[in-house]
Formats: sequence, C-alpha cells, structure tokens
Amino acid sequence: MPCLRNILNPHSVAVIGASDSVVKFGGRVMSFLIKHGFSGQIVPINPASEQICGLKAYAAIGAAPGPIDVALIALPARAVPAAIRECGEAGVRGCVILSADFAEAGDEGATRQREVVDIARRYGLRIIGPNCLGFINPGLRLALTSSVALAAEPMPAGGIGLISQSGSLMASLISHAQDTGAGFSVAVSVGNQADLEVCDFIEYFIDDPVTRAICVYVEGLKDGRRFLDLADRCRDAGKPLLVVNAGRSEAGARITQSHTASLAGSSEVWAAACRQHAIVLLDDPEALIYCAHFLIRFGPPSGNGVAALSPSGGTIAITADRLAAAHLRLADLSPTTSSALHDIVPTGRPLNPLDIGGLARERGLSAARRAYELLASDDDTAALLIVVATTPELDAKVRAWAELALAMGKPTAVLFPPGALVDRARSILRELQCPYTNRMDDALRVLNAAIGYGTALRAPRDAPIAPINPARVAEFGAPSSALTETEAKELLDTVSISTARAQIAMSEADAAVIAGAIGYPVVLKLSSRTITHKSDVGGVHLNLRDEQALRSAWHDVQSRGTALTSPEKLECAVQPMIVGGTEMIVGTKWDPQFGATVLVGAGGIWAETLRDSQVALAPVTTRQALDLLQRLRMWPLLAGSRGRGAADIDTLVEVVVRTSWLAATLGPRLQELDINPLLVKSRGEGAIALDARATLLPLQL
Amino acid sequence: MPCLRNILNPHSVAVIGASDSVVKFGGRVMSFLIKHGFSGQIVPINPASEQICGLKAYAAIGAAPGPIDVALIALPARAVPAAIRECGEAGVRGCVILSADFAEAGDEGATRQREVVDIARRYGLRIIGPNCLGFINPGLRLALTSSVALAAEPMPAGGIGLISQSGSLMASLISHAQDTGAGFSVAVSVGNQADLEVCDFIEYFIDDPVTRAICVYVEGLKDGRRFLDLADRCRDAGKPLLVVNAGRSEAGARITQSHTASLAGSSEVWAAACRQHAIVLLDDPEALIYCAHFLIRFGPPSGNGVAALSPSGGTIAITADRLAAAHLRLADLSPTTSSALHDIVPTGRPLNPLDIGGLARERGLSAARRAYELLASDDDTAALLIVVATTPELDAKVRAWAELALAMGKPTAVLFPPGALVDRARSILRELQCPYTNRMDDALRVLNAAIGYGTALRAPRDAPIAPINPARVAEFGAPSSALTETEAKELLDTVSISTARAQIAMSEADAAVIAGAIGYPVVLKLSSRTITHKSDVGGVHLNLRDEQALRSAWHDVQSRGTALTSPEKLECAVQPMIVGGTEMIVGTKWDPQFGATVLVGAGGIWAETLRDSQVALAPVTTRQALDLLQRLRMWPLLAGSRGRGAADIDTLVEVVVRTSWLAATLGPRLQELDINPLLVKSRGEGAIALDARATLLPLQL
Repeated sequence: MPCLRNILNPHSVAVIGASDSVVKFGGRVMSFLIKHGFSGQIVPINPASEQICGLKAYAAIGAAPGPIDVALIALPARAVPAAIRECGEAGVRGCVILSADFAEAGDEGATRQREVVDIARRYGLRIIGPNCLGFINPGLRLALTSSVALAAEPMPAGGIGLISQSGSLMASLISHAQDTGAGFSVAVSVGNQADLEVCDFIEYFIDDPVTRAICVYVEGLKDGRRFLDLADRCRDAGKPLLVVNAGRSEAGARITQSHTASLAGSSEVWAAACRQHAIVLLDDPEALIYCAHFLIRFGPPSGNGVAALSPSGGTIAITADRLAAAHLRLADLSPTTSSALHDIVPTGRPLNPLDIGGLARERGLSAARRAYELLASDDDTAALLIVVATTPELDAKVRAWAELALAMGKPTAVLFPPGALVDRARSILRELQCPYTNRMDDALRVLNAAIGYGTALRAPRDAPIAPINPARVAEFGAPSSALTETEAKELLDTVSISTARAQIAMSEADAAVIAGAIGYPVVLKLSSRTITHKSDVGGVHLNLRDEQALRSAWHDVQSRGTALTSPEKLECAVQPMIVGGTEMIVGTKWDPQFGATVLVGAGGIWAETLRDSQVALAPVTTRQALDLLQRLRMWPLLAGSRGRGAADIDTLVEVVVRTSWLAATLGPRLQELDINPLLVKSRGEGAIALDARATLLPLQL
Repeated sequence: MPCLRNILNPHSVAVIGASDSVVKFGGRVMSFLIKHGFSGQIVPINPASEQICGLKAYAAIGAAPGPIDVALIALPARAVPAAIRECGEAGVRGCVILSADFAEAGDEGATRQREVVDIARRYGLRIIGPNCLGFINPGLRLALTSSVALAAEPMPAGGIGLISQSGSLMASLISHAQDTGAGFSVAVSVGNQADLEVCDFIEYFIDDPVTRAICVYVEGLKDGRRFLDLADRCRDAGKPLLVVNAGRSEAGARITQSHTASLAGSSEVWAAACRQHAIVLLDDPEALIYCAHFLIRFGPPSGNGVAALSPSGGTIAITADRLAAAHLRLADLSPTTSSALHDIVPTGRPLNPLDIGGLARERGLSAARRAYELLASDDDTAALLIVVATTPELDAKVRAWAELALAMGKPTAVLFPPGALVDRARSILRELQCPYTNRMDDALRVLNAAIGYGTALRAPRDAPIAPINPARVAEFGAPSSALTETEAKELLDTVSISTARAQIAMSEADAAVIAGAIGYPVVLKLSSRTITHKSDVGGVHLNLRDEQALRSAWHDVQSRGTALTSPEKLECAVQPMIVGGTEMIVGTKWDPQFGATVLVGAGGIWAETLRDSQVALAPVTTRQALDLLQRLRMWPLLAGSRGRGAADIDTLVEVVVRTSWLAATLGPRLQELDINPLLVKSRGEGAIALDARATLLPLQL
C-alpha cells in the first residue's frame, strides 16, 4: 500500500473547512495540528479567511501551493462531493472525510457516498472515512483529527498500529495509552470505509517497520477472507493482530448496522476464525492496548504455566481464585524451586501463588527480588502475575520486579492496587516502559491473551488434504433448495458418510410392508420438503415395536402433517430403529463474512438445550476436528468414563472432516446442513447419520 | 454488642510499643493517630521513652491515667500475653493485636493464641486480631492502624462498614474509597479472629446508625449459621450485606488456610447461601466498595430492565454486547418513550442502548438531558448505564446526568473512559457523591449486584413446612455408615420417595429365578457396601433381555467385583429395567460451614460430564425447588420442547423438597446422599429412584 504510506506520513496537509474557532471541527483540527507541532506544511482552506491560526489560508485547494499529500475535509456532507472533485483536480493523493450523513444515515447518504467514491476513483484519490475522526501519527507529531482527546499532550508514540471503526473509541484509546505508557505508530479511525478499509491499514502496518502489534476495533469486515489472509501474514511477520469485534449480541448487531452500516458476523464464527488464525480476540477496547503493549514488551509466553506473587496474603488468596476462574493454569514448581523458595518464606506456606508478606523488614526487598527470580526461572513458569500491595519499600520492590522481568524477558503482568499512594510506582513502570494494569480483570485478560497467542503460534499448521472427490460433490443437485431427508442423505453419500436409509411409504399399507421387510422395531418419520424440523411438530415416532404401533403412528403423523401443510396425504419414511451409541450433531453453515463453517456438538434432544457445540472455518484437518471434540463439555462421554467405553472417535472425526470438505467444496450453494442425530457407536463400530436436512442452492448451469 | 461500640468509638487509645520511628509498626500507628487528628486521648506506652511524638509516654499501661478504652499492641508475639494481662489489670476494655505469629503460623502460634484469649476472657477484655492491621473510624478522625495506606489524607468517611480478614485488603479498599468518593463508618481488619470475629462486627454495623451498607472480605466463617441469621437481620434493617469470600478454588483454599488459618467452604454452597439470604456475593474486593456505594446512593433497582446511553456509537455497540454477555436484560421501552426519543435521535437508530452521538451541537446538552429523562422514566427501566465518551461539553453533560439520576432516585451506573481528560468530570461526580466506575467490568458488576439484590429482596419468604414425619426419619439407622443400595432406598422410604426395589440374589440360579418372576428385561447390579460407585467398575448391566444375557452378566459382575474386593462370591441385585423419562440426580451433602444442602441436576451418564446442577441450603420450599430446576441448563428438556412433552415437574419438585428435609432432619449424620438416576416420567406419571447411595453416621444412642 504505497499510497497509504504517503497519506499516513504526509509532508503537507490541507484542512478544507479550516477555522479559528475550536468549537468547529475544522477549528479543532487546525488547533491540534499546530499544538502538537507537525513539522510538515499546514495549508488551511477557507474562502472566507485570509489567515487562520496565524497561517496563510487559501480560498480553494486549487489555489494552494502543491503538492498536497492529504486533505482533511470538515464540511457539511452536501459540500463533500465538490470538495473531493477539487482535491482530485489539484492532485491531492488522499482525503480524510470527517463529515457524517453518508451510508450510515440511510439511502440518500448511501447515494452520496457512492458519488464521492466514484469521483475519487476517477482521480486515483484515496479516501479515509467518511464519518470518521481522522488519524494521528505521533512520530511525525501529526494529529489530523478533531477529537478532543488530542487536547492532552504529548501524543503517545510507540509500536501499536490502531485501526478503529469508531472515532470516539480511537480517541479514548489514545487517552488510555497516555495513561498507561503505551503508544502508537499510527492510530486511524476508518469510519464508513467507503474506500480504504480495515484490511488496507492492516496491510500497511504489516509492512511498517515502526509497528510491532496491530489493534483493530471492527464492526463489520468488507472482506472476511482477505482479513484472514492478512492475519496469516501478521503471524508470519511476528506482529500480533488483536481484535475487538462489536455486534456479537443481537442488540449490538442492530447498533453496528445503524452506526457504520456494518453487518456483524456470528460471534461463534468470529471466535473460530480468530482461533484458527492466531488472532487475539478481546471483548474490551482498552484491553487491546493492554495486551498489545504486553506482547510488544515481552513477546508471547513459551507455555501456559502462570506463577503469581504478592506481598498481601488476602490478595494472593483472591488471586488464586481469580486465576482459577479465568482457566489459567498455575505453574507446577520444581522441587528445586520449591526448596529455594522455602529459604525465603515459612515452610507450610503455599508457593504458587506466593504470599511474600510478613517477611522480616531487613530482608523485604531482597526477598521480593529473590522470590521473583526463583518463580521466573522455573521451567514451568511461562508468565508471571505480580499483585502489588501497599507495603513498605513499595517503589523499590516494583522497580526491582520490572527490571528483572524486562532483563529476563519473562512475560510479567503487574497489577496495581487502587489509590494515589501507588502513583509513584506507576510512573516508575511507565519510565521503564513496563506494562501494568490497575484491575484484576485486565491482568487476567492480558495473561489469557498472551498465553493464547503463544499457544496459537505453536499450533501445527498442517495443510488440509481433501479426503473426498470434489467433482462428485460439486455436481450434486436437487429439484429444490430445501432438500428432503432422502436427498440430504444422498448428499452425504457423495462424501462417503454412512446414513440409515429410509424407504418412502405412500400409504399405511405400504409402510407396513416396508416395516415387515426391514424388521421391527422401526422409526416412522414425516417426509416433507416444507417441514424440515420434523421432531418439533411431532412428525417422528421412534421405536415402533409392531405393526399396530406403526399404523397408529401413521395416523398420528398424517393428522399432524395435514394440519400444517396441505389437505393431501403425506409421504412418510420408514427406517430401522437403531439404538446404542452417542447422539451427535454435525452441521455446516455458510457465513456471509468468513464463508464455509462446520459445527459439531451434542445431538438429538440435547442439541438445542445444551448448546454444547464447537464451530470452525471449513475445511478442517483431522487434528482440528479432534480439537473441536476435545473442547466440548461432553468430551469425557466420548472419550469414555464412568464405566462407559469410548465412542468411535476416529469415525466421528472423519465425519466432521468430510462434512467440512462438503461445505468448503459447495461454497455458498450449501447454505446449511444438519446431520442430527449422527449416532456414534463404540470404538471400531462406526457412526451413522440417522437423520439429515440441508438447504442447497441450485447448480448454476 | 455494646463492648464493640466502646472499642470502635473510643475516648482514649493507648499504643503499646509506641515509637517515634515510622519504620516501626508502633511508630506508624502513632504518626497516623496524630496526623489524622484523633480528638480523644492518645497514650503512648514504651518503657524506654518519656515522650513520643510530642506526647508524654508511660512505661506501662498500668502507669497511664485511665480509663483506656482500647489499647493497640505492636509488640513481638512472645511479649503479647504479658501485655494482655497488664491491659486486663489496668481495666482496658479492648485490645487490637497487630502482632503476627499466632494461629496462622503453626502449633506454637496456635497455643500462644489460646493463651492470649484465655487471659483476655479472665478480665472480660475483648480482642481484635491478632495478625491484623487494626481499624479506622473516619467520623472520629481515628486511624488505629499501621497500614501505609493511611499516609493519604483525609480518611474517607461515609456509610460503608467494612470488615476484612486481610489487613492489606482493608488498606487497599481505603485507598480505593479515597479514589472514588466512597467512605466508611468503620473499616476493621479482623485478622485471626481469636476473639471478636466477622459476625460480631456485622452485628455492630446492623445497630450502628451511621452504617448503611456492610462489606465483608472473609476467608472462612467461624459460625456459618450465625452469619446467615445476621444476613437476614441486615435484610430486615435495609442494609445490604456484600461479601467476597476467598478460597473458592483449590489453590485459594490452601492459601486461606495458611494465611488466617481459615477453612474455606464449597463455592457452590457459598453461592447458594448468599442467594437464599439476599447477600451480594462478589469476586473482587474493590467491587465491594463500588457496589455498596451504589446501593447506598440509589437503593435497590425495582426490576431488572437496563437502559444504556452513550455519546459514542462504537462504545454503545460494545456496551450492548457486554450487557448481553453479563446476562443483563435490556429494558423494553414503551411506544411512548420510543416516539419521544425519536424526536431527539434519527429514526432507524436503535433506542436501547441509545447512541446520542452526532446530534447537532446546539442541542447536544439538552438532548443528552432529555434522553436520560426519557429512558429513566420508562416503566421497564429499573437501572441505567451511562457510558461517558470524550465529547464536547462533557463536564456539563456528566453533571446533568448525575443530578438527574440523584433527583429521580434512579439507579444509574456511570462509566468513564480512560484518561486525564475526564478527571474534571470524575471530580464533579465525587462532589455530588454520585458513584462511578472506570472499567466496564465494574459497571456490569455494579448493575448485576444491585439488580440481584433487588430481586432477592422481592423474593417471597414463605416459611418451609415439613412434608415429612421427622421422627420416622430421625430414628432410621443402618449397620454401617456406608449404606447398601437397599438401605439407601429404605432411607428414601422414610420420606415417601418412590424407589425401584431390587431383590438380592446370592447366586446365579437365584438371579435367574428373580428375573423370571419380575419379567425381562431386567437390570443386574453389584450389591456391595464397599463399592458404592458401581457403574465406574462396570458393576451395572442394563437392559438384560433374557436369561442367557442375565447369566453372562452375572459372571461378568462376579469377576469384576471379586478382583476389587474379596475372593468370596458377591451379592447382586436384580430389578426391572425401567425406561422412558428423564434421568436426574438429587442429592444432599453436609457442609461444615452452612450445614445441610440439597442438589438437583442432570443425572445418569450426564451427571459428572455436564455438571449441570444447582445447590441450595436445606430445607427448601416448593418454590425454591422449582427455582433450582429453572436455573438448570437442561430446564427446557424438563419443561417440554422440541416435540417432547413436559416431564413430571411437580413430582420432581416434591422429591427435591423431601430430600432436602431428609438432609435437614438428619443433620450432620447424613454426610451425603445421591439418588442417581431418579427417573422422571411424563407429566402426571411420577418419578422413581432407580439407584441410591448414602453415607449416614450411626444414631447417637
């Protein structure tokens, strides 16, 4: 993105709509440009003034001396198209449009946005925004934004590249970085992403030598697959990519739609995409900065064992509870470490987390230092948590710990207690550029994010190999998008997944003949293209032991089905009653943002109730499929426990892999597919799809 | 507790071990007493000085002019018993012992602690500590503590009564209150609770007119039932009781044992006890102060609908997601509220949570005010969340919101963004004594705590009525504590819970005769007093369809059982195979802290895997039992869904109630009981205990 390098690192900036009044957008922009000391050329544009903020102003961009690298536009929306045209004519390379009332504000705004983009394209001019707050480049002392957050000085410079779809969040994260000692290479608010979008900036940051971690607040991606490809490039470049995505809840999704006209994706799919591509997914914007700062200073932890210490016994008990609740594993200290620690603290005191309170005064500081060194040197300690408490010699201890952590390169989260009493200690850490947090929640987020990132980096990246014949899958079609059960099972045949075949009965007598032939007990199911959730309407009768039961079930299904659809007689399917095994669900869904996905979970009557399921982007490897199973709450039931033998996990894994390839091969044609239940038998005995439903769009001929 | 009133509100305090040096405990205590301006008499005791901190010092407490209300002891542990004796002789009413090396430090310390208590009892002298940090009474400007937290001034005065088993946590919460504008009636650190314990202070605070909310950090209760009785008195007095209990995790429990010699209780039982007694249970100490401050200023919300607003669109999208993740319900605004809000914000914009950003400048402040009024006046809004963002006119908006919230008496959580830019707004809220938080996690904790407290207050307090014959239960006994399945089912008979009776077979032939008589299919189970988890060892064979299957099962059980216990032949039980229904577990456990408890959850093979269970203190009412069921994840399966009819919930509730009475009646004799599975059939068809095991201590004759 060479154009972005010019726009984000300009030699000259123009402000269209510049003003002397800081209550106006263009006035605040001017005041921040001057106040923060941008060393390049600043060109105010305003037809009504000859001079603004002491600088010569021009009536139009065309009248100003060129070249102008970037022009910020702070005009009412209706004036923007003309301004863009003038910029284009004047050879400006990039425009930052602060103005709102574009795609986020309905049809008229959307039309105006398209117009602006069309004009810009004609001139090869790139746009940030509209409906954004601009950007800052602290290295250049450049604040090209109207955000009041820039009233504070200096701008925090550092290695974080920040991309925010919300202007005010960018502003609040700049304030947050100022508070905590973190800093930015560039922080940019992308607004409606009419032209330049989140991914363009990620690409810039990957190539930018100053940027060491990339933070993104996103309400909706324009191109999910490009985002994931860039995530892989971030991983290869050793630059952690950290994301907060809004719109995970129903109410949140309504807001992102209204706010920046973004369609939020499914939160489960987001989580799966991030897990598979080593993206650090967070729920809180400020945590982006905490975690990025931590990863920049320490790099990813080499394992997942955590050691913790505090000079307060009460605090350390709470710390133990909170670490457990956050599913962080306490490092298992070696006998060597333990016996050395017992030279410092009384025997009988637990060693991890370690309470170093109540040690004799003369040994306080040296014991604090020694305790850190011992914990940090243990082979199982991948990261540390220091919970500071207001004790004597606080500042000296905090300095000693931070210096040791940085010297040893051991990822260490420092958590401060509340209060002005530790302000001095906080400033010591800012001077050392050692990250810290003020709340346990954030310390735990930092540890989990860093450990999770390290784990994702170490995960094997085996290339998925298709165990199916893609051509056979791709040519599959059905008369209608809503597949019948029989058609759905035929679709499973194309990837060699075993199914319990049902035979269609057109009449009661027909059903009795079929059942007699296959042998009781049998299952009778409504067979309909329109009623796909058969169980919900009482359209499934299990375990029919004889003909009388079958006939009675036939009548029941007919009366229920008829009430729901048409007065005509309905078809039913008869299949053998197969029992013994674990009922699972395996499914796929096309995600508009990230594409094909696969799901596996507890099936049958438990599927909807327990929601014990896991999702991944498709296709998955055998290893990934097994990983999905192991993350289910019901995993112990599959693995065998409580007197139950293990289920046929190998076959289940294979079904998940094949289903994922089915989804990946059919792409957006396969809107969704549910195998439910998939009956998984004992080890070595296979698995069989008892029921299936699918929505498959027609073949494009 | 009249004695506590004297000790916590003294006219005269002595410091035994007083010093001029602030690196010594007794020196810091003296310096804080003087610095904070305690208006009563301060009496330094030190045999080596004539004057300390400018005050006349005495060689011994007996030499000082009396009466002394409270003496603080800052001496090495070995000197404490003699000091206590001297205090007793001198007529001192209470002693605060800072010294450590008592019960928390092993056997020798425990002996010393008993000695100190014995001496004190002889003189009617009460003790706070040992191993504590003393207390503060800001109303009297009295800081009787050595904590360096008291270096900051002034002490925060207010309506919170704080009791902490950790001294350094008390100190950090004093700093936290200073930061946030909250304050204390008294904050006390109770240490080892050798004499005065947490409950004594709760009792004091209930009667203390200045105290309006009571916060407790506890590592272990000395008397769980007394604590719950006092919780009920807090509820009656309208004073919320807020608790953080440490030792919820295994590692945390090891630490509390080592730190203050406390045995932590089960975290599930703690949660149940708090829910049943309107105690606000929190996971974070600082949250105690946030939540107490909020409840003092606003009282409990009248419902559970939450409305939120922010001037930042990105922030409001995140807010919606976080509220959903915290299981807070968005208020469902009335059409009247909605149409009035649409006079302020563009149509199409979601109204709750409400983004009031981008409104025309001239209407900014009035729109912000009006939006709050409309949201707060809606019938379904019980509490509000304001997420402040750095926008123009920030201070005026924040002041307007806070004044409206306090005037309307509407519980409103204000969340500030990071950064020094909002420091002025923060100080406005402190002046108004309007609570606020700086992190979303804390805002959500406050809302959940307040709404949960309000809900608990409104919960009906119907008195439980025993549906059983307690005498019949109480006289039940068995030959050994480990009951056989048959004995456990006899125990269930005493409270009229239906059981599937098994008949004991002494031989293979015997088993065949029994099975023939009751009819196939049958179940064959190992019957043993020593092997109580039969399934785990393969000792249960289900669904035996004929004699051949039965005989083969007999041999399998014999070989497995023999391998585990003795070379002799084992007994087996034969019972009818009963199918169709939902398998549940209902159980009891004696909790050393809170007494009898009852549990209900998913049973059978799912019991251990899903851990979908709920616990309550026993006995429970019908309403409470139903509430437990409704909190299970599997509740939809019981209530009927996905084509399944409802289970016999009435009978299940009755079984839970009767089991809870069994536990309550037998008390500590019934160590534990598991009915698993309890097969719950369709509505109207009952429930039957298929298996049961119990540990019942012998009758005390």
